Amino acid sequence: ARTGDPEVVYGAGKTPDQVVAILSALHEKHPERAVLATRLSDESLDVVRRALPDATIDLVARAVTLGPLPEPRGTVAVVAAGTSDAPVAAEAALTIRVHGAGVDRIDDVGVAGLHRLLAVRDRLATADCLVVVAGMEGALPSVVGGLTGVPLVAVPTSVGYGASFGGIAALLGMLNSCAPGVTVVNIDNGYGAGVFAARVARRAEVRP
Amino acid sequence: ARTGDPEVVYGAGKTPDQVVAILSALHEKHPERAVLATRLSDESLDVVRRALPDATIDLVARAVTLGPLPEPRGTVAVVAAGTSDAPVAAEAALTIRVHGAGVDRIDDVGVAGLHRLLAVRDRLATADCLVVVAGMEGALPSVVGGLTGVPLVAVPTSVGYGASFGGIAALLGMLNSCAPGVTVVNIDNGYGAGVFAARVARRAEVRP
Amino acid sequence: ARTGDPEVVYGAGKTPDQVVAILSALHEKHPERAVLATRLSDESLDVVRRALPDATIDLVARAVTLGPLPEPRGTVAVVAAGTSDAPVAAEAALTIRVHGAGVDRIDDVGVAGLHRLLAVRDRLATADCLVVVAGMEGALPSVVGGLTGVPLVAVPTSVGYGASFGGIAALLGMLNSCAPGVTVVNIDNGYGAGVFAARVARRAEVRP
Amino acid sequence: ARTGDPEVVYGAGKTPDQVVAILSALHEKHPERAVLATRLSDESLDVVRRALPDATIDLVARAVTLGPLPEPRGTVAVVAAGTSDAPVAAEAALTIRVHGAGVDRIDDVGVAGLHRLLAVRDRLATADCLVVVAGMEGALPSVVGGLTGVPLVAVPTSVGYGASFGGIAALLGMLNSCAPGVTVVNIDNGYGAGVFAARVARRAEVRP
Amino acid sequence: ARTGDPEVVYGAGKTPDQVVAILSALHEKHPERAVLATRLSDESLDVVRRALPDATIDLVARAVTLGPLPEPRGTVAVVAAGTSDAPVAAEAALTIRVHGAGVDRIDDVGVAGLHRLLAVRDRLATADCLVVVAGMEGALPSVVGGLTGVPLVAVPTSVGYGASFGGIAALLGMLNSCAPGVTVVNIDNGYGAGVFAARVARRAEVRP
Amino acid sequence: ARTGDPEVVYGAGKTPDQVVAILSALHEKHPERAVLATRLSDESLDVVRRALPDATIDLVARAVTLGPLPEPRGTVAVVAAGTSDAPVAAEAALTIRVHGAGVDRIDDVGVAGLHRLLAVRDRLATADCLVVVAGMEGALPSVVGGLTGVPLVAVPTSVGYGASFGGIAALLGMLNSCAPGVTVVNIDNGYGAGVFAARVARRAEVRP
Amino acid sequence: ARTGDPEVVYGAGKTPDQVVAILSALHEKHPERAVLATRLSDESLDVVRRALPDATIDLVARAVTLGPLPEPRGTVAVVAAGTSDAPVAAEAALTIRVHGAGVDRIDDVGVAGLHRLLAVRDRLATADCLVVVAGMEGALPSVVGGLTGVPLVAVPTSVGYGASFGGIAALLGMLNSCAPGVTVVNIDNGYGAGVFAARVARRAEVRP
Amino acid sequence: ARTGDPEVVYGAGKTPDQVVAILSALHEKHPERAVLATRLSDESLDVVRRALPDATIDLVARAVTLGPLPEPRGTVAVVAAGTSDAPVAAEAALTIRVHGAGVDRIDDVGVAGLHRLLAVRDRLATADCLVVVAGMEGALPSVVGGLTGVPLVAVPTSVGYGASFGGIAALLGMLNSCAPGVTVVNIDNGYGAGVFAARVARRAEVRP
Ligand SMILES: Nc1ncnc2c1ncn2[C@@H]1O[C@H](COP(=O)(O)O)[C@@H](O)[C@H]1O
Ligand SMILES: Nc1ncnc2c1ncn2[C@@H]1O[C@H](COP(=O)(O)O)[C@@H](O)[C@H]1O
Ligand SMILES: Nc1ncnc2c1ncn2[C@@H]1O[C@H](COP(=O)(O)O)[C@@H](O)[C@H]1O
Ligand SMILES: Nc1ncnc2c1ncn2[C@@H]1O[C@H](COP(=O)(O)O)[C@@H](O)[C@H]1O
Ligand SMILES: [Mg+2]
Ligand SMILES: [Mg+2]
Ligand SMILES: [Mg+2]
Ligand SMILES: [Mg+2]
Ligand SMILES: [Mg+2]
Ligand SMILES: [Mg+2]
Ligand SMILES: [Mg+2]
Ligand SMILES: [Mg+2]
Repeated sequence: ARTGDPEVVYGAGKTPDQVVAILSALHEKHPERAVLATRLSDESLDVVRRALPDATIDLVARAVTLGPLPEPRGTVAVVAAGTSDAPVAAEAALTIRVHGAGVDRIDDVGVAGLHRLLAVRDRLATADCLVVVAGMEGALPSVVGGLTGVPLVAVPTSVGYGASFGGIAALLGMLNSCAPGVTVVNIDNGYGAGVFAARVARRAEVRP
Repeated sequence: ARTGDPEVVYGAGKTPDQVVAILSALHEKHPERAVLATRLSDESLDVVRRALPDATIDLVARAVTLGPLPEPRGTVAVVAAGTSDAPVAAEAALTIRVHGAGVDRIDDVGVAGLHRLLAVRDRLATADCLVVVAGMEGALPSVVGGLTGVPLVAVPTSVGYGASFGGIAALLGMLNSCAPGVTVVNIDNGYGAGVFAARVARRAEVRP
Repeated sequence: ARTGDPEVVYGAGKTPDQVVAILSALHEKHPERAVLATRLSDESLDVVRRALPDATIDLVARAVTLGPLPEPRGTVAVVAAGTSDAPVAAEAALTIRVHGAGVDRIDDVGVAGLHRLLAVRDRLATADCLVVVAGMEGALPSVVGGLTGVPLVAVPTSVGYGASFGGIAALLGMLNSCAPGVTVVNIDNGYGAGVFAARVARRAEVRP
Repeated sequence: ARTGDPEVVYGAGKTPDQVVAILSALHEKHPERAVLATRLSDESLDVVRRALPDATIDLVARAVTLGPLPEPRGTVAVVAAGTSDAPVAAEAALTIRVHGAGVDRIDDVGVAGLHRLLAVRDRLATADCLVVVAGMEGALPSVVGGLTGVPLVAVPTSVGYGASFGGIAALLGMLNSCAPGVTVVNIDNGYGAGVFAARVARRAEVRP
Repeated sequence: ARTGDPEVVYGAGKTPDQVVAILSALHEKHPERAVLATRLSDESLDVVRRALPDATIDLVARAVTLGPLPEPRGTVAVVAAGTSDAPVAAEAALTIRVHGAGVDRIDDVGVAGLHRLLAVRDRLATADCLVVVAGMEGALPSVVGGLTGVPLVAVPTSVGYGASFGGIAALLGMLNSCAPGVTVVNIDNGYGAGVFAARVARRAEVRP
Repeated sequence: ARTGDPEVVYGAGKTPDQVVAILSALHEKHPERAVLATRLSDESLDVVRRALPDATIDLVARAVTLGPLPEPRGTVAVVAAGTSDAPVAAEAALTIRVHGAGVDRIDDVGVAGLHRLLAVRDRLATADCLVVVAGMEGALPSVVGGLTGVPLVAVPTSVGYGASFGGIAALLGMLNSCAPGVTVVNIDNGYGAGVFAARVARRAEVRP
Repeated sequence: ARTGDPEVVYGAGKTPDQVVAILSALHEKHPERAVLATRLSDESLDVVRRALPDATIDLVARAVTLGPLPEPRGTVAVVAAGTSDAPVAAEAALTIRVHGAGVDRIDDVGVAGLHRLLAVRDRLATADCLVVVAGMEGALPSVVGGLTGVPLVAVPTSVGYGASFGGIAALLGMLNSCAPGVTVVNIDNGYGAGVFAARVARRAEVRP
Repeated sequence: ARTGDPEVVYGAGKTPDQVVAILSALHEKHPERAVLATRLSDESLDVVRRALPDATIDLVARAVTLGPLPEPRGTVAVVAAGTSDAPVAAEAALTIRVHGAGVDRIDDVGVAGLHRLLAVRDRLATADCLVVVAGMEGALPSVVGGLTGVPLVAVPTSVGYGASFGGIAALLGMLNSCAPGVTVVNIDNGYGAGVFAARVARRAEVRP
């Protein structure tokens, strides 16, 4: 695309056949680089697996890639609060790899269990960019943002119930973070956070 | 009152003369215990000071008491995230004292500076009840609630700007806290949190 | 856990097999105390029943326990407005028992039939903590809170239709209660109210 | 007017001179019946007092009448929860009188103090229509509606703070009342409730 | 019930067997007057039809009655804007009959076709109370309210799409009606409007 | 401008001197056509009057023009519900004239008084475009749209109180209008409606 | 109809048989002009196809016509941002044709790919009216409105996820467009936009 | 601070004397680097100017710095849609400089005038990070994000009226941007965007 990014297929609302057709066509045009398809239904994942045996399937992220992943330049730490945030974190992580940066996954470090978070401070500090995924009250980016000055993109997830409004509570929490320098993407938008973070990390990579 | 609580005058929307008159009348009826007046305007604070020289004035809480405070039974730790949360924390603290419990104030322990919070873990653990006051994203109760099993009442404050909606973001954050056992009162309602926490602490006090 | 509370499995979004596996593992580690699993699907309840014959199943609360319940210390009165609030009240009651306090259930005392509520004033007054569960306009905590000074946790339920917004009307009603000292948890959050109320009641128990 | 109702001037946004001019003109056209002006500013109240010495001024309702009130037919009980609801209750009461029904004022009967409400059950039961005015959580109509089968119009007021949203919490509470047969008007709309209730009471009056 | 109204079973969330059981029990206790059950599922309607051959079934209202309807006293005109508002209008009409008043149904008189509405002005003017049912922008009560001074209860319906928010647009329209004396019930609440209107009409009936 | 429209100065947030300076500069560049300035403060209106004696001042619209108005091509009927809608109607009317179409003003035709509206049906039918301005429940466009097939732009105004939310109720009413072919602009946006309607009317003018 | 428009059947909530019956009846009454049915379910489309072999089916618009389309007078350009906006654009286009104007479809010109939009500037400028369909942030009308002075109706679609709220984000974007003269219809309301635009284009047609 | 960032004083709610005192104290502690104070009232700006003659005052940003600015590393392009967005853009720009990056200001490039934006494509493409400031519908980041792959932080401003809700419309527009890789900060939060963008640019600077 015009912005230099790889091609991505947004699978929601597409039939399995459409997904396979678009993936194949894009792969044929650029066999030397990976194509990504996200938000795939169970059925689409299944059809892709059978129709495109060379594709790599990520069941947690509900996404597939076709073609070789680029060499990673720079590293993004993808931090997730709880296990229910895993699909969004996985979508972010795969997007980052496809967009040319490396990934360090840090899971299960919710704010109600600080010791786990404090134990990974070094990995946070040495990353080139952070993607912090959390649902419910969305407090994790504030705490992480107070521990390090690395650029931080927060991803609210729709995990929660009652007055969480499908992720609005977490979104508002992140927009109002008391830690300076936190930016936010839309609810469950692991893809958007991944594109952004990979751009930041790739540019940062050649630091001495 | 029927519930055994002291008399309280809600000063918002009352003229200085009304406040003085009600305070005097209630004090005369029950000179042996404190009357509390909250949400006083600058003018009311001023008139009370001159008309009731025996009253004790709390300028930060914008509140006054008349008559002797009860002996404290049990202790409530009142924890505040930032300096702008001080008026709400002060209203809670004074309400607790008037309602018969003792207070331990812990200020300026926002989640973006964890070390200050970790330094006071002991004071949190030995309290009989916690009142945790925070604005912006309202993350502090989640972090405190992960550190201790003491009953915790969260108070969202209207501190913030942009999409904080006068405290709604903090309120939602607290209602969706990932730490179990957090309860919440209305925005800026230090008084309500104080009444509740004092009731809990008074009952808990005689523990061995 | 770090806060001294028993282990709890949040069943929503977990497969029956995951629920059974986690329950068994936790039970094996701490056979001397109860493990709780909440928000179980029909299928999970069924699989648990067959796989763990020693588990105790609460069909109304959609929850199970494995292992012996602790001796109750202190009593929480769980008050519910209508029959449709029963699942939330049951989740609160079971949580309270698992967390070490006793329960007094008071059902079907909605504000549109005051006589039933007035008939149980003594039970309200002698409890160590109250959990008041109500949907629709959420008026019950205000009325109960005017009858007694016992600490009161209000639980809005998603019962209602039209402009009740899945419990938001009840939640707002409770946050704006004209009875002082009412605290609130998230919509349908019987578990959160139970954890909190048990902590309060356990501490209060040894009162002379 | 076409509907048989008296003329009413909505004072908000009108200059004192406009108010005086319209009142005079309407009074001249129909000297035999009362004209009503509502929502008057301090300044308008003042100018009307001096320019129209025959006008009757109601400072609490911020309203004036000019010309003789009609004979009352039927009775509306106007019930208010707290003293801050007084302006709305007064606007309703005056509107009812101008529209031809009688008024029975019942004040200060909030749901957190049930005994006062129970003491006036007879007056509620013998009215031809009820107007129930309440702010904060708006619980009063549910409780009153459970005590009697008289038609009941609820008026939410903008009294409250925090997440009361200028009366929205009370409005939602009333729309979701668990007492059947409660109808609602807009926030602070004592006038609308008064017009409606007077129509009901006038029709009901000739019951044997 | 305490308010003198007939017994009503709210069928939502009840199994067919529960509905049949409650209907039978209530009917046995008071065979001389009608019991009403509303909000019945297809399945419940079917089971009731077979189990209670004496019941009268209203398929549009999704409701049944068992036992003789009372003699009508007074008349309520039930006015509906469009055909999709029919279920709510039917629920209101049946509720009115069960609660002792007569019904005049006026259908299909939306505001975008004024001539039909103007053709029924006499029927509107001679009713004792009006129930006006409308979805979308909820404009019908304003227009009807401008044509007559009969007490008017507006019922917003959840009919609509896009930014109608399941009836919120109609609800707001009705609360903000420029016709004085319009009161409102919750979205789709034909039952509540019916209870209220029947009470008004019954009291008005004996007018000379 | 690029779209062929005249230059317009949005006066909100501009100092009187800025307004005068921009008006003069634009007028000098194009003395043969009118410049429009809208949303002027009292002070700006005053300063413009003294500094630019050739300017034409519209006090109701809070707007001024400098330079000759174009010959009108086609006619827009500007219909307003109440007198408080006048400023928005005036802004629309002046904008239409400056953008080259003629105006037919129809005032005070609210939906609660249908006879006035029915009396002007001919003027509605012969216009080339309609701008319909209304606050409160915003019902007027639905009624007008049912009377004629002329293109209709609805303008919600912020007139109202209680749950009208500064015009949101009217905006939703118009978006959900049951009359087909109604389009809407933002709250109080007489300017936007005027630009659009003038474009439609100018194109329509040469009809035989 | 009274407004001179063709008959239209709103298919949502109607059974296939009802759709066929109404279509046939209307067609018989006016065989010389087209009847339109919109919002048809898969099942209705299927039944219509078999029962009315003369009907023309538009699967993307989920709509059918019966009877000859009128000669087009004037042209509306229907511009869509993305492929997921196609159903709404198709509904608008077919409505325009049925209502007597011609259509120029311009697809896939989202704001994140400006070159495609710039390539069709001439087609935009020569249309008599524009219908611009977009979801997500709804930015397309602002950009198109800056390129031309042709009257522009914006249609927000419910395409999007996270905090797009089923089209509310796009609706707000369009209402707040910085391009003057943009009007808006309800979310996904291709029909309403089509009726309006056809009226504008038909009137505009005789320009030299 | 712990994150390596300079000290910043948030001036809102602080008295002029407090601002001066904190600025002086922080400057004394670290005379070799700049202290920043933002959100200053007119009075605070005035007092600072007189009390701290060495301070540099930015009247548009309502901010001051004391002490030498760091050498810029990397460049952030700060892009603003309209002149009313200038204060937020200025706050971002000054924050960026204080946090060690250089700034390229690009003003007045709203989406309704694409040619100005297209003319600066090169400056956009060579920046290390973009901060895009826009109010109203918030469309600018989508258009800019479609032109380049540079990391982009969007800042919604509270500029707008009607249904713009103090910046919510712009915020939603940006969260739902159809251009991938756009991140967002809170409304008017130029400071937060600046901290983040400076961090990204400083890391990117040493690219070959
Ligand atoms: N700061 C406060 N916030 C909320 N409610 C309060 C506050 N202070 C007093 N109240 C309540 O207001 C009541 C007194 O109201 P009033 O009779 O109007 O003075 C007390 O009994 C309390 O329940
Ligand atoms: N359609 C309805 N909408 C709202 N409330 C209803 C409806 N039908 C019955 N009710 C109420 O529900 C009560 C019976 O509830 P239940 O005991 O659960 O059957 C009645 O007394 C009515 O107050
Ligand atoms: N009353 C108004 N409401 C909304 N927008 C307006 C209004 N008047 C002028 N505008 C717009 O504001 C632009 C001028 O803005 P400015 O350059 O800040 O004066 C004009 O081109 C119009 O698009
Ligand atoms: N314009 C601003 N907007 C939001 N936050 C700010 C702004 N300026 C400063 N801050 C934050 O406020 C903190 C200082 O707050 P304080 O100690 O109250 O002066 C800084 O560390 C920043 O994180
Ligand atoms: Mg979280
Ligand atoms: Mg905080
Ligand atoms: Mg209830
Ligand atoms: Mg109340
Ligand atoms: Mg309607
Ligand atoms: Mg109106
Ligand atoms: Mg779009
Ligand atoms: Mg903009």
